[in-house]
Amino acid sequence: MPQFLSFDDADFEASFAALLSAKREDSPDVDNVVAGIIADVRAGGDEAVIDLTAKFDRITLTPDTLRITSDEISDAIDQVSAEDREALELAATRIRAYHERQLPQDAEWVDDTGATLGWRWTAVSAAGLYVPGGLASYPSSVLMNAIPAKVAGVERLAMVVPTPDGVLNPLVLLAAHLSGVDEVYRIGGAQAVAALAYGTDTIAPVDKITGPGNAFVAAAKRRVFGKVGIDMIAGPSEILVIADGDNDPEWIALDLLSQAEHDESAQSILITTDATFGEAVGQEVIRKLRTLERRAIAGPSWRDFGAIITVPDLATAANLSNRIAPEHLELCVADPDALSAQINHAGAIFLGQWTPEAIGDYIGGPNHVLPTARSARFSSGLSVLDFMKRTTLARMTPEALRAIGPSAERLAASESLEAHGLSVTARLDKLNR
Amino acid sequence: MPQFLSFDDADFEASFAALLSAKREDSPDVDNVVAGIIADVRAGGDEAVIDLTAKFDRITLTPDTLRITSDEISDAIDQVSAEDREALELAATRIRAYHERQLPQDAEWVDDTGATLGWRWTAVSAAGLYVPGGLASYPSSVLMNAIPAKVAGVERLAMVVPTPDGVLNPLVLLAAHLSGVDEVYRIGGAQAVAALAYGTDTIAPVDKITGPGNAFVAAAKRRVFGKVGIDMIAGPSEILVIADGDNDPEWIALDLLSQAEHDESAQSILITTDATFGEAVGQEVIRKLRTLERRAIAGPSWRDFGAIITVPDLATAANLSNRIAPEHLELCVADPDALSAQINHAGAIFLGQWTPEAIGDYIGGPNHVLPTARSARFSSGLSVLDFMKRTTLARMTPEALRAIGPSAERLAASESLEAHGLSVTARLDKLNR
Repeated sequence: MPQFLSFDDADFEASFAALLSAKREDSPDVDNVVAGIIADVRAGGDEAVIDLTAKFDRITLTPDTLRITSDEISDAIDQVSAEDREALELAATRIRAYHERQLPQDAEWVDDTGATLGWRWTAVSAAGLYVPGGLASYPSSVLMNAIPAKVAGVERLAMVVPTPDGVLNPLVLLAAHLSGVDEVYRIGGAQAVAALAYGTDTIAPVDKITGPGNAFVAAAKRRVFGKVGIDMIAGPSEILVIADGDNDPEWIALDLLSQAEHDESAQSILITTDATFGEAVGQEVIRKLRTLERRAIAGPSWRDFGAIITVPDLATAANLSNRIAPEHLELCVADPDALSAQINHAGAIFLGQWTPEAIGDYIGGPNHVLPTARSARFSSGLSVLDFMKRTTLARMTPEALRAIGPSAERLAASESLEAHGLSVTARLDKLNR
Repeated sequence: MPQFLSFDDADFEASFAALLSAKREDSPDVDNVVAGIIADVRAGGDEAVIDLTAKFDRITLTPDTLRITSDEISDAIDQVSAEDREALELAATRIRAYHERQLPQDAEWVDDTGATLGWRWTAVSAAGLYVPGGLASYPSSVLMNAIPAKVAGVERLAMVVPTPDGVLNPLVLLAAHLSGVDEVYRIGGAQAVAALAYGTDTIAPVDKITGPGNAFVAAAKRRVFGKVGIDMIAGPSEILVIADGDNDPEWIALDLLSQAEHDESAQSILITTDATFGEAVGQEVIRKLRTLERRAIAGPSWRDFGAIITVPDLATAANLSNRIAPEHLELCVADPDALSAQINHAGAIFLGQWTPEAIGDYIGGPNHVLPTARSARFSSGLSVLDFMKRTTLARMTPEALRAIGPSAERLAASESLEAHGLSVTARLDKLNR
């Protein structure tokens, strides 16, 4: 690898199937460790969180210093350059504008029996946002998680971010500030997830937890699911580029590498109708890998999981794309809208060669938290809806109950649920009296 | 129990907290057994499914008889009485009409930089519906799961239903027929979930699995989650009735029992502003329990988990309701709309005394698959959206990229993701040349 495949090869189907099923995640089995940490935090509260933070992050906290104060946040934010601040503000503004359009509509109508039916959306009351520490601490991820929550109307948004050796990340705190995060705690790992889910004396419990994290965080989120809601458990990043021959090989090579540089397990695939162009992109990727800062990550990713696939036409490209169900899909073709209409499964589509995927990571407006590992077949990226829930509404009148009640009695009888039927019968009896 | 609580009692908070945290589910640990069954089906395909079905359901199948034929379905449906069929048809029509209103809108707009942004909803391609066998085999549940899937546009809807000793359930098959189910297989348990998730020679894999089931089915769904999407894992049913004194105690008693009769672990709670009325309801429940067909189930449920709570006013009732976050909430008060406006967390609200919860189970139109165990704080009932997913769309123009690209470069640099930045820079370079 990277594999050069051609749709016309005799063994194409076998090679493509292997690509689809390549096991990219090495998730260490940390479940027992995490179960222990969660039990400790449930039993020990603040004290357990403080002990675990001393152990993992090498800082000594008290219940009073778990939370990062607004003064600390202000001081950190002051260190951010004007240029970085402006960029983050533009991103926040654009992400907010996009997500405000996702706010769902309530509905209420009267049907032909006189019954009033409908639904009403309400926000989750309290949400928790996990932000990783160290290298994977991305201010853009804070915006992408916090802004939809606040647009949804979440009243209390509590963020946790580990600060190994006590070092604060000014851009992450600025992103939290710009997004309207209400509380920030300097804790991380499974202990932070447990504190958010079950609460401690200092940290009130939340109803939903979102945000990326390492294997410990992912295992903790799985374990507290049910007690609270969680977002998806994201896998390594992926990009699929469908390109015709009328593209700059350098641009496409960089787009492929922009996902490869995330993670050694990331996957970057090019599908092209032009074999010569595909070869040029492959060469350009190799050239860029000589100097890329994160070549130690992007190199193995490209070598182990990258692929360049030649197809006879764009319809075939769309078919293969639907089997891949990619997280990110770039359509670098003359008529991207026509090709987009053939795509059934993708987390995010980037239309045309002027839309590199990196725009979507930062500043486009759509969310960058997207379904990985083929889960775009059945799930969507993070949105305002993830921080809301729908209550259905029904109001019968006596006339409506007279019209449809007898069918309910009948069905209750067929399911041997007598009290269900009697609750209708008692009311109909009064009407018929 | 059933507990008579008064908000004015000195120990009310402790009693109410105990009610909230009562452990109602006894989920046997079947995870190891289920892991083995899933591994068997992945390795053995049809043959493993057939062996397990022989063992658990006492029927001998071949790959050719796994599927229930359309002739068998027709023959079974012919046994349904005209009255039952009419009731089921009315339910299907009303459920379809309600869910058709849930179809989400696509969106596309051009922002002030000239960038086109938006999103597009698409249906899950293939869905699987689990239907329990035996006593818990409810035709209404088939409608509630299958109709939203078909309204969403799911092309292939495969249903599995165990047929112990080979006995088919005519009403369940009629419900499948009315809902547009495409394939029905006579298998159940963890083996059926595994077959749907991973596929066999006879059963093509699906992308999403919904529907209720026993502890084995629930454990199997948890295990295949990620490979496919799943709906919620539902717990025992719950009803909360908020009623003033101006109600018939018999009606409210039957409403409480209509959930209690589902399961010994079901929970039925009345909150009332009228202590005398509360006592009358309590007496009426006891009276009904003497003769109710399912008194062996409803009795323990009411005894162990039922409660009647007296409160000083409806605002207090709403506050307690929001802490309970009930699956079903009846508002039997003079102005149910005003009270409904104070409810933040509930799966379904039934407004006014002419709307018994049983109407919602069968015929009202809204879905009866609803969040239990306080999960209405963060999740919603089943809907058309559960069978759809959203792809975000973005299309930059050169002008749009010139406007926002530099901020993306800046943020990429701040996150040390060089290739992300370069993919933008390469394009901006061309524009500035």
